[in-house]
Amino acid sequence: MATAGPVEVYLDLLSQPCRALHILLNCTDIPHKVHTVALRRGENRSPEFTRLNPMQKVPVVVDGGFVLTESDAILKYLVTKYDVPEHWYPRQPERRARVDEYTAWHHSNTRPHSAKVFILEVLLPSQSGSPVDAVHLTRALAQLDDTLDKLESMFLRRQPFLCGDDITVADLLAICELMQPVGGGRDVLQDRPQLQRWRSRVQSAVGDAFELAHTILYAVRDRRKAKL
Amino acid sequence: MATAGPVEVYLDLLSQPCRALHILLNCTDIPHKVHTVALRRGENRSPEFTRLNPMQKVPVVVDGGFVLTESDAILKYLVTKYDVPEHWYPRQPERRARVDEYTAWHHSNTRPHSAKVFILEVLLPSQSGSPVDAVHLTRALAQLDDTLDKLESMFLRRQPFLCGDDITVADLLAICELMQPVGGGRDVLQDRPQLQRWRSRVQSAVGDAFELAHTILYAVRDRRKAKL
Repeated sequence: MATAGPVEVYLDLLSQPCRALHILLNCTDIPHKVHTVALRRGENRSPEFTRLNPMQKVPVVVDGGFVLTESDAILKYLVTKYDVPEHWYPRQPERRARVDEYTAWHHSNTRPHSAKVFILEVLLPSQSGSPVDAVHLTRALAQLDDTLDKLESMFLRRQPFLCGDDITVADLLAICELMQPVGGGRDVLQDRPQLQRWRSRVQSAVGDAFELAHTILYAVRDRRKAKL
Repeated sequence: MATAGPVEVYLDLLSQPCRALHILLNCTDIPHKVHTVALRRGENRSPEFTRLNPMQKVPVVVDGGFVLTESDAILKYLVTKYDVPEHWYPRQPERRARVDEYTAWHHSNTRPHSAKVFILEVLLPSQSGSPVDAVHLTRALAQLDDTLDKLESMFLRRQPFLCGDDITVADLLAICELMQPVGGGRDVLQDRPQLQRWRSRVQSAVGDAFELAHTILYAVRDRRKAKL
């Protein structure tokens, strides 16, 4: 271990990238301490949190005084700095490049397209009290479908995980985005057996950490269902 | 050198990330061979190129049979694999994390917001023959302004380059995005002395490689100016 004391982790489990980080921390032995920053109560805009991250975004980690933002960078930093199984972010250049290739693609595809479905179905209606914008939702679902097609036909074409034979940080970022619409009662992998099998492999690989990270999202779904 | 033969590079210099790669290759000693894939002639959708990259995007590199897409991943792979000065992508975990932090942020900020200005001012009008959509352009410029504010107040606050005291692949990705609206005659850094000084530092650090990569973009600007 390079630094004294646990890694201080600031997150909200309703945020997709925060869940990816939470899963990694819980299925490795990285010593850490979680601080919840409740986005729905605007705690990310408090003066204290803004001093830590002027971008007012979660997650943030503080590792022996080193403050780091951006989940993608945080995951790669932690698995490099701490003694965790190498498969999370392989050192061999070609295998590592595969992870960097997916994560770069992720930011312009899986993340915005899956997030948009949740925003349109859950976030905007709950903030505005207006019904779901059906036209925009249809368009968002079509874009997400195209992303799901590519995940199947490109990244998972010949391998069990997105970047090879074993789970990497890329799988965590991806599955946590694709789970987000579950908060609105929608399983975007419902008609996608190939992606469902991948999800099961990710769940098996991380064990209880998966359900632990998603408990709050499931509660959002159940609360909405009870209201209908 | 880990592989025999030059790195085969497929690019179009009108694409921002391709220029970042072109600059890196020209100011390091990585042996490479450039193949131009003219996007405006749809060469990225040819059967040959689609076999290489089913996503039909540039840049692509082939290094001894290893095919890699996504500029972010390509830059990091090349500077890891080849013997180039370490400052491009530092090995020390905290310094490397700073580069990964910027590049992750880049994909959702600098890239889409700067690209959108070029798309609205140059690409869409030239494809459709219609005038520029002023409402969308105003909105895009406001979003870009917010990104420029953050580049100044966060990434460049206390340091000469985006990720520290020396140039990294992050600066290349950023400057090539921010140069794109120049193709429409717009210098988005015009009223931004702090960012202008950073651009000058990047230009000094990479020498002739900067102008070499931007020649075609300048030609687009000059051709448009002549037409007006």
